[in-house]
Amino acid sequence: MTAPKFKQMKQAYGFDDVAIVPGDITVNPEQTDVSLQLGNITLDIPIVASAMDGVTDVNFAILMSKLGGLAVLHLEGVQTRYDNPAEVLNEIANSPNEKVTALMQKIYSAPIKENLIGERIRAIKKAGAVCAATVMPTNTKKYAQLIVEAGADLLFVQSTVTTTRHVSKSYEGLVFSKLVKSVPIPVVVGNCVSYSACLDLMKEGVSGVLVGVGPGAACTSREVLGVGVPQITATIDCAAARNTYLKDTGRYVPIITDGGFKKGGDVCKAIAAGADGVMLGSTFAQAIESPGHGYHWGMSTPNPVLPRGTRIKVGTSVPLQQILFGPTSVTNGTQNFVGAIRTAMGFCGASTIREMHNAEMVIAPSITTEGKSWQLSGPNTRA
Amino acid sequence: MTAPKFKQMKQAYGFDDVAIVPGDITVNPEQTDVSLQLGNITLDIPIVASAMDGVTDVNFAILMSKLGGLAVLHLEGVQTRYDNPAEVLNEIANSPNEKVTALMQKIYSAPIKENLIGERIRAIKKAGAVCAATVMPTNTKKYAQLIVEAGADLLFVQSTVTTTRHVSKSYEGLVFSKLVKSVPIPVVVGNCVSYSACLDLMKEGVSGVLVGVGPGAACTSREVLGVGVPQITATIDCAAARNTYLKDTGRYVPIITDGGFKKGGDVCKAIAAGADGVMLGSTFAQAIESPGHGYHWGMSTPNPVLPRGTRIKVGTSVPLQQILFGPTSVTNGTQNFVGAIRTAMGFCGASTIREMHNAEMVIAPSITTEGKSWQLSGPNTRA
Amino acid sequence: MTAPKFKQMKQAYGFDDVAIVPGDITVNPEQTDVSLQLGNITLDIPIVASAMDGVTDVNFAILMSKLGGLAVLHLEGVQTRYDNPAEVLNEIANSPNEKVTALMQKIYSAPIKENLIGERIRAIKKAGAVCAATVMPTNTKKYAQLIVEAGADLLFVQSTVTTTRHVSKSYEGLVFSKLVKSVPIPVVVGNCVSYSACLDLMKEGVSGVLVGVGPGAACTSREVLGVGVPQITATIDCAAARNTYLKDTGRYVPIITDGGFKKGGDVCKAIAAGADGVMLGSTFAQAIESPGHGYHWGMSTPNPVLPRGTRIKVGTSVPLQQILFGPTSVTNGTQNFVGAIRTAMGFCGASTIREMHNAEMVIAPSITTEGKSWQLSGPNTRA
Amino acid sequence: MTAPKFKQMKQAYGFDDVAIVPGDITVNPEQTDVSLQLGNITLDIPIVASAMDGVTDVNFAILMSKLGGLAVLHLEGVQTRYDNPAEVLNEIANSPNEKVTALMQKIYSAPIKENLIGERIRAIKKAGAVCAATVMPTNTKKYAQLIVEAGADLLFVQSTVTTTRHVSKSYEGLVFSKLVKSVPIPVVVGNCVSYSACLDLMKEGVSGVLVGVGPGAACTSREVLGVGVPQITATIDCAAARNTYLKDTGRYVPIITDGGFKKGGDVCKAIAAGADGVMLGSTFAQAIESPGHGYHWGMSTPNPVLPRGTRIKVGTSVPLQQILFGPTSVTNGTQNFVGAIRTAMGFCGASTIREMHNAEMVIAPSITTEGKSWQLSGPNTRA
Repeated sequence: MTAPKFKQMKQAYGFDDVAIVPGDITVNPEQTDVSLQLGNITLDIPIVASAMDGVTDVNFAILMSKLGGLAVLHLEGVQTRYDNPAEVLNEIANSPNEKVTALMQKIYSAPIKENLIGERIRAIKKAGAVCAATVMPTNTKKYAQLIVEAGADLLFVQSTVTTTRHVSKSYEGLVFSKLVKSVPIPVVVGNCVSYSACLDLMKEGVSGVLVGVGPGAACTSREVLGVGVPQITATIDCAAARNTYLKDTGRYVPIITDGGFKKGGDVCKAIAAGADGVMLGSTFAQAIESPGHGYHWGMSTPNPVLPRGTRIKVGTSVPLQQILFGPTSVTNGTQNFVGAIRTAMGFCGASTIREMHNAEMVIAPSITTEGKSWQLSGPNTRA
Repeated sequence: MTAPKFKQMKQAYGFDDVAIVPGDITVNPEQTDVSLQLGNITLDIPIVASAMDGVTDVNFAILMSKLGGLAVLHLEGVQTRYDNPAEVLNEIANSPNEKVTALMQKIYSAPIKENLIGERIRAIKKAGAVCAATVMPTNTKKYAQLIVEAGADLLFVQSTVTTTRHVSKSYEGLVFSKLVKSVPIPVVVGNCVSYSACLDLMKEGVSGVLVGVGPGAACTSREVLGVGVPQITATIDCAAARNTYLKDTGRYVPIITDGGFKKGGDVCKAIAAGADGVMLGSTFAQAIESPGHGYHWGMSTPNPVLPRGTRIKVGTSVPLQQILFGPTSVTNGTQNFVGAIRTAMGFCGASTIREMHNAEMVIAPSITTEGKSWQLSGPNTRA
Repeated sequence: MTAPKFKQMKQAYGFDDVAIVPGDITVNPEQTDVSLQLGNITLDIPIVASAMDGVTDVNFAILMSKLGGLAVLHLEGVQTRYDNPAEVLNEIANSPNEKVTALMQKIYSAPIKENLIGERIRAIKKAGAVCAATVMPTNTKKYAQLIVEAGADLLFVQSTVTTTRHVSKSYEGLVFSKLVKSVPIPVVVGNCVSYSACLDLMKEGVSGVLVGVGPGAACTSREVLGVGVPQITATIDCAAARNTYLKDTGRYVPIITDGGFKKGGDVCKAIAAGADGVMLGSTFAQAIESPGHGYHWGMSTPNPVLPRGTRIKVGTSVPLQQILFGPTSVTNGTQNFVGAIRTAMGFCGASTIREMHNAEMVIAPSITTEGKSWQLSGPNTRA
Repeated sequence: MTAPKFKQMKQAYGFDDVAIVPGDITVNPEQTDVSLQLGNITLDIPIVASAMDGVTDVNFAILMSKLGGLAVLHLEGVQTRYDNPAEVLNEIANSPNEKVTALMQKIYSAPIKENLIGERIRAIKKAGAVCAATVMPTNTKKYAQLIVEAGADLLFVQSTVTTTRHVSKSYEGLVFSKLVKSVPIPVVVGNCVSYSACLDLMKEGVSGVLVGVGPGAACTSREVLGVGVPQITATIDCAAARNTYLKDTGRYVPIITDGGFKKGGDVCKAIAAGADGVMLGSTFAQAIESPGHGYHWGMSTPNPVLPRGTRIKVGTSVPLQQILFGPTSVTNGTQNFVGAIRTAMGFCGASTIREMHNAEMVIAPSITTEGKSWQLSGPNTRA
């Protein structure tokens, strides 16, 4: 009789499951270099704001660039469907919970106005900022030229799961290797979570890969589809792909972990796990300057038949500058992300992001438990 | 001295413990084939409604068949004990919590009226629907001929734990190999959870096996008996039995994972783990067309001396069609199950259910944790 | 340089971490034999009530024996310190929470009246019941003769942790091999949790070993001392000791898992893990006939300087007979424990307790999670 | 193609994840020796109070020493910045939650008055107590001589993460081997968590090492930086370093596990894991004699740009003597720590702390679960 063959599954880990172990030497945080290189573009800080309508508009992209980071403008959202997107964002923010998904399904069924694509990009460039713009794979061929001509510095091609090969009868799949050759600016693609899918994308010649399926606060792919990989394991696997690709070709393609971050510690863990940069949504939706009025949502939320996201209320807290660099009197890790990265690097003796990839990590679920037990005693206990 | 020999236990996993990893290629969801073959019967969708009195009556079975799925009518519940089952179901729905088990113990002690067996089956067939009917092993020999003669298309033989051999002094056990030869319609049996028990049942010549002991929302076998295996492991083990049996005999016997599903993601995970179909109770009890008025319960609930189930209130939400196919504005995975299966298959590059069995999976407890942490902030946070 | 040597720890499991896998054949529950043999005493059911003052008094011991089980009377508690223990138990039941430990510290500092030892035992024997009595190791030599002469059938020697060798300057340790030879009735000792400690005790010639340190609801050894082993692992390890001892000597020494049980499923799991019997406290404290008025506590609770237990309120529910044998309309596993054992054995094809030791088990944390998620929706959801 | 290389992580454990297994012999608790040797200083009990402003002032240090333990005075906190520190501590205790971190940032920006360093030390010595004082690595060279001259018995050099080598442009790093030679009193340094970092520190000639990064109740390094190792694993790893160093050199350097303790069981577990002593903050902040009025906080809390701690309210309970030695009527492990250590050692047959390092331990998450399930029923249940 044939021997039984059982399906095998490996263990995966998220931010809350792991911790960083301090190193054997320490470094002064002020001497760390936290820059991120995407093709010919260098960012002073390795932090990118999500291409979400509640997070990034023209003004936010300009401000983020001035502060050394990057905010990616989504070219298939309200910014290109409406002449006055602020009005529409206001409407979403004021909708009651039980009606907001239906409202968004309606709002996002309005057609994209091609003239607004160039307009938005030019507004960012005019302010002297680095401009990054996102399109979905289906529409990339249609809009790429327009985007380049308008002067964008970086092209992001992003969907829930992006692979080098997509089987469809209704449209011809996007070939990334062709795209990369046809546009003169760096192309960053995603999202993916596995070693092989990431390696495939790097072989196409892209300048960066976004890592993460399912972890974001606004994403419900886990509930709806069961699809997703916790971010630490996704980052470790894609970092292994990057390292393999580097050894084989000599070219270093940075990976950007995207989604699920809630606090500075999460960002530090992603970098220690191998990320070259991080993309945050919820965090920046809380900035006073973000366009969502304290709300954000993903591009799968308005899906007309199977919405896979929710509008998340995060509230509005402080200026973007303070979120990024402090100073702060908040002690829960939601402000001064750059200070957190530098301090964690200091504790691990890492002078650069790439050195931080060598930091030791442990699987440490109980750290949270220990911390929580105090909080369980009620809000009065934690003074 | 004899060396110590410690009992060994393997780790088992449920829906919440695992996640599906997207594939290296993707497929357009509309091009996926999600059909399920049970003997000579082909279902357009791989979804079966439980043989629970709160879920399936004649009308529900007809509707489910028209929508491409299957609903199994229980022939030892209120449908055959009462001429007017709707009245009895109403009484159960209106009973206060503390009295409902005792009430059911009384209701289910009424005798089965054999004439109603044929009557219910004929009503379903008359409407042009596929008719599946369930009996318990003890009564199978008594009723099988009646069921076949009334025109049923599929015979389900189902109890909490069903094995090929049952030791009893009070009655002669059912021999499945004889049953299968004596009835001209496909026989589906269950439930089982282990490789060997599943393989034994397949060797008897059955056309399908139901997988699952203990996971259902209405089942308390876990508390009362400590017996049960989480569904992902049960499915993986029984899928291994199916594959072994296929290799050894060339015959493909589909397995249907039964119980414990709460959302589309759970169904996708069961299929990725190896299920050919899924049987749901709670989900369909929420359909406007289901007979339980927003309640459901298992056949072990009315047990007169050791009840092992509870009446579960799920409420009534939307029409069955919307639960199965959407469209929906709900983002938590409780509507558009077929859309979810097709989309997950698309993300894994699977064109058929059997291809989806090859999807990679990870053990990923923290995915839930990350998602939950937002919800922990209170109902106002998740907009 | 010397290579690092890190302390190793093995994983341990409790009731909530595991589940029983149904077998490949099933047996009619009515045909199972669930008896337990302790020396020359045979019990019809493998269930023993704890030697706790809130659980067992003379009347309860008589009733339990008549129902086929055993209740152990503690000879160093209120029953032998007070002529009218009911009065004292009443006082404890009526004490406010914040004062009860101090009250008990005072109550238990009253001296033991030796005449009451014989009186209580004779009262039990007079009713025709099997009489089991507990003393602590320190006082065993002092009271053993008295207990035997009064007519007890079984002598339990029990403390939190009992070993064959105790180092002390203040008193000479108890030698179990001498004790066993000097008393003509079976001696049951405990508690222990490890393979080696259990094997040592068996080599002394005892007739039974109690397994369990720390798991009981009324015990806080975990918080206060950090000492304790989850019951499934403790049972598996001690069962391995029993099996080794049986192979080496031909003598079968039953083990009784003591503490931490909350429902029928827990008892079934302990037996599947290797227990020959189970000792329950909380469960029987809920019987109408128990003397604690719905409260119970362990013998470490009144410790004058380091109390390691609490008074637990369990409330009063139903007669003992119903807890043991049903029938019941409760579906959460807290009634009909014998029915649960027989049914679980039936699902595993086990005709005797010793056959049940061969049942397959899995580590299955998520079973609980799946079940809980319904309950998390609030008390109104689970009808 | 280069084979993939995935980052590896080992599993780490905290107090709640493990339990101590009783031994095969037991010892009378009164016969245990629990002393701790730090260089030429012997403490009767292995318990040290944290160098936190809410825990240790001059009076508390004197009292702790008289009771056989040690309390470490922080020389860079309010005690040396203010002539009347009690006034400032009062102000902190009375600040509302939302303003307290900002207030502390201000309070701790006042300069250190060097004359107060000697004054505080002399006050402790004058009372005949052992005096231990803490400085941070940055200021050690500046203050060491002053501390020695004032008569301190022990010098603690402590920061969140301390290593033998610190890379900085702004100041020349502290060389521990030079420091140890230049001061005539024992030097204890920390904190560290890994085998190699601990071994490096021991090689510098220090007399003790503090173990623990991130676990304390008042520390939020986990949230802010993601850095930290659960205490059981940190202790096991550093104990392995100590044992290696002992084998290689013959010198025994004790390790003191610092932070995260909530109850006696945690302390017993740390010792069983390999700790020679323990440092507690929260616990002693609850003593009537502690200066924080029921509050405490770490030295990272007032950090002006990236605070990594919070003010924790623990309330005020009982005198220090009772916390250390009982007697008590509290059953949750928060009083009589020394009694708990002695009793646990008795259960493990350990006569000394170093023998206790050989106690067997298990990974036992479910012990907590079992215990908690009672508590989950609400505060009325646990009487």
